[in-house]
Amino acid sequence: MTTTQRTGSGRRGRPGYDLESLLSIAVDLFNERGYDGTSMEDLARRLGITKSAIYHHVSGKQELLRLGVDRALDGLLGVADEAAALQGRAIDRLDHLVRGSVAVLVDQLPFVTLLLRVRGNTDVERDALARRRRFDRTVADLVAQAERDGDVRPDVDPALTARLLFGMVNSLVEWYRPRGDDTHIIDAVASVAFHGIRDTTNR
Amino acid sequence: MTTTQRTGSGRRGRPGYDLESLLSIAVDLFNERGYDGTSMEDLARRLGITKSAIYHHVSGKQELLRLGVDRALDGLLGVADEAAALQGRAIDRLDHLVRGSVAVLVDQLPFVTLLLRVRGNTDVERDALARRRRFDRTVADLVAQAERDGDVRPDVDPALTARLLFGMVNSLVEWYRPRGDDTHIIDAVASVAFHGIRDTTNR
Repeated sequence: MTTTQRTGSGRRGRPGYDLESLLSIAVDLFNERGYDGTSMEDLARRLGITKSAIYHHVSGKQELLRLGVDRALDGLLGVADEAAALQGRAIDRLDHLVRGSVAVLVDQLPFVTLLLRVRGNTDVERDALARRRRFDRTVADLVAQAERDGDVRPDVDPALTARLLFGMVNSLVEWYRPRGDDTHIIDAVASVAFHGIRDTTNR
Repeated sequence: MTTTQRTGSGRRGRPGYDLESLLSIAVDLFNERGYDGTSMEDLARRLGITKSAIYHHVSGKQELLRLGVDRALDGLLGVADEAAALQGRAIDRLDHLVRGSVAVLVDQLPFVTLLLRVRGNTDVERDALARRRRFDRTVADLVAQAERDGDVRPDVDPALTARLLFGMVNSLVEWYRPRGDDTHIIDAVASVAFHGIRDTTNR
């Protein structure tokens, strides 16, 4: 990829921004204004450098988008692959997947936020949506398997349940602000997802 | 309000669009392109009428936004007020609120979608966010009361739980397509929210 070649060429250490900090600021700007609403001029202004200084690092806006959404997708699909490869019952693998996804989400919040706002207008966005669908299929397959195992209540539809679970998980990008220790939020999501909020111990 | 005076003046029946159909198309366009990214020119083009024909109905883009988000908020706050006024245990009132909110959401999907994308850049948006916070407080208060009643597990934080519940509910705007009978989705959300997905009957 272009970026790797360029960063590999030794230009990376030039004064100003390296690719990582440039990407981070670009993703924040995309999240604030929307990808379509952000121009390379806007980005140059935010960075306080010229457009040509940005083109030194990346081929353009699309490449920044691809790097941003791939960061999120690599994390999420990594967790999905881990969960699929685990030994043990599907319900436990699903638990691993839910907890791991929350961990990726809070750790890579701006990147996952960008991913979740992608709508499919460009090749990069369509590729991202295709990878998201692969993730969604893994979730739905695990819910279906757990239901066949008798570990998920039979009155829930696997595809619908997968959507509701990850609707809850993904909603974190709208309101969660990381505080260093994310154990609390990971436990809370897993608890509501698997047990609901109603206390049935004394019924 | 201007609109009421104008529609009350008898001009409403003029050929083309009445306020309701104009609002519906405007809200769809706001949802497609973002409120900030939609101009009155864009709207006139979509409607196939002149801008002055739109100003016949409303004072401008802000008024269309206000009418749109108020449609969603009136429905949601109506359900919240109902739930708060009900007799009985907080957990049952919370159940009423969750089910009623899903019903409003699927019935008024474009309007709730618009509401959930509001970010607070204008007076109309700030007013909408203030009304949303009133709704969120009702939910958090009911969760807290239900927890004091011993009906909600004590390991969940009321404010966090309220956010997770409505994160799941609100995620519907991203993927749910109404199919006439919405009982199925209302039951599915209530089931996951209150009982989670794990089958504990045989443990």
